[in-house]
Amino acid sequence: MARSAADWRPEKCIGEYRLAGCEVTTGCPAMSIAQAVELGAQSFVLGFANSGGHLDERYLSHVMAALDAGMDIISGLHDKLTNYPELVNKAREMNAQLIDIRHPTTRFSTGRGHKRTGKRLLTVGTDCSVGKMYTSLSITRYMHQQGMHATFRATGQSGILVAGEGVAIDCVVADFISGAAESLSPDNDPQHWDIIEGQGSLSHPAFAGVSLGLLHGSQPDALIICHALNRSHMRALPHVPQPTLEHTIELNLTAARLTNPNVFVAGIAVNTSSVSDDEALAWCRKTSEQLGLPCADPVRHGVAELVARL
Amino acid sequence: MARSAADWRPEKCIGEYRLAGCEVTTGCPAMSIAQAVELGAQSFVLGFANSGGHLDERYLSHVMAALDAGMDIISGLHDKLTNYPELVNKAREMNAQLIDIRHPTTRFSTGRGHKRTGKRLLTVGTDCSVGKMYTSLSITRYMHQQGMHATFRATGQSGILVAGEGVAIDCVVADFISGAAESLSPDNDPQHWDIIEGQGSLSHPAFAGVSLGLLHGSQPDALIICHALNRSHMRALPHVPQPTLEHTIELNLTAARLTNPNVFVAGIAVNTSSVSDDEALAWCRKTSEQLGLPCADPVRHGVAELVARL
Repeated sequence: MARSAADWRPEKCIGEYRLAGCEVTTGCPAMSIAQAVELGAQSFVLGFANSGGHLDERYLSHVMAALDAGMDIISGLHDKLTNYPELVNKAREMNAQLIDIRHPTTRFSTGRGHKRTGKRLLTVGTDCSVGKMYTSLSITRYMHQQGMHATFRATGQSGILVAGEGVAIDCVVADFISGAAESLSPDNDPQHWDIIEGQGSLSHPAFAGVSLGLLHGSQPDALIICHALNRSHMRALPHVPQPTLEHTIELNLTAARLTNPNVFVAGIAVNTSSVSDDEALAWCRKTSEQLGLPCADPVRHGVAELVARL
Repeated sequence: MARSAADWRPEKCIGEYRLAGCEVTTGCPAMSIAQAVELGAQSFVLGFANSGGHLDERYLSHVMAALDAGMDIISGLHDKLTNYPELVNKAREMNAQLIDIRHPTTRFSTGRGHKRTGKRLLTVGTDCSVGKMYTSLSITRYMHQQGMHATFRATGQSGILVAGEGVAIDCVVADFISGAAESLSPDNDPQHWDIIEGQGSLSHPAFAGVSLGLLHGSQPDALIICHALNRSHMRALPHVPQPTLEHTIELNLTAARLTNPNVFVAGIAVNTSSVSDDEALAWCRKTSEQLGLPCADPVRHGVAELVARL
């Protein structure tokens, strides 16, 4: 989540606040809360994610310090900041905001399945955290460069932090998943593309329900299949193997046809960060030939090929 | 929901409270709130359901009257009784309880997909409201009559009202659907059957996400496919056709294999209430031959055939 903001909204990022033992970085300069405030920082973002979206209480003292320094707090966790009385009291005292961006504030309807005007692309994946959001943002940016009409539709806390709006679809009450997804990409101009950030995977035992409701509600015209190289198992579940690309295509097309019989796969977006440039290119060429679809790493190769079929 | 309580817990039902224009009945004697209290009624159940689980404000005066008469209130709606200050104040005044049985009070984990001990059966359907709960309750009762060890696991408000416990899976935060389903049927004796009430349908554009998360978390050994005769379209969606039984079997087996590769279909349970006895029997025989599976209407024919393959 922190990295997303630093990569996609660098103009809004002043620095990073690191705890002892932290092994990753956004690339932003490390600084204290006091230094950040001096440089103009107005918000303190809890930039981490974990399965279940739990707020570990050992972080509360840092949140209190940021509030004390006059900052608003932004969290993308399931555990709400506003459920901690000490934070609520401190925020009131400092006239600061506690912003739980994962928690929808809208009242949703159940899905209707009616065909909406405009075009929609959804990124889906072999697994969680394989690059669906980066691919969606890259495609939207490229489309804008080409003069196409397109809107990125955020469906998770990181995407919402980047876009400034959206619905964290995994935090919606289950009955309203597809209804919330429908509301996220309403009727639009016939040539307009909604580029909808996918979530989870139909092959993930924990999160497939979220993925399916999002797929049905998005009624995509086009799918991009996202994948990451060299994973031995599904995220956080060492006993669950990764699905093949072929199986992922088949599962998603079968499910997507329920709300859009004309859905097609536009290409494969792959996170190749675990291999060399040459290996990445070779893997993409081989996969493209095998599946008869464009295949590229959005970060290394761009998304021109993936957009070509749209 | 009212009918479920009257059919499956008749010893707990004293009467029904009807509004002008009501066209259905539970079979319980109609009475006023005052009469019900005089006969010993302690709870006033909002026995209706609607898509979205909305509490129409025109019912509030009746709820207030029941509170005034000293009754607790039980609701299975998404809209919480406890969100209405006038109800909360009145309940406090009368020392009465407002019980929102659809809303989980447990903190769930995300799904793990680990194989659990014991056996599990899940009812799945071509559509919503095709008899998944009645079939599950019928199977549990029949198993008990046969001396088998079995537990009905409620996953919706009506089932919870009947069983006295359970989790309304469609009211869980989307990220926790399959985790909640896992917690509902924990490790058990090798010969014990959990009979898990299904929800929605993988072919329903509004609710398939709930159905899929429940399917993955339940990791069923056996599926019973539930169906209702003579429906022209999916519930509440006139533009969405019903899936075939063959497609429903294929969709559910494919998805269920993710968490239990050995899953099988034990039979077809069909609601034949729209046709004659003879037509019902003929339809079941024909379907049984076509699919090579037992097929019966649990209400008309019992469930012995459906349990035979377990």
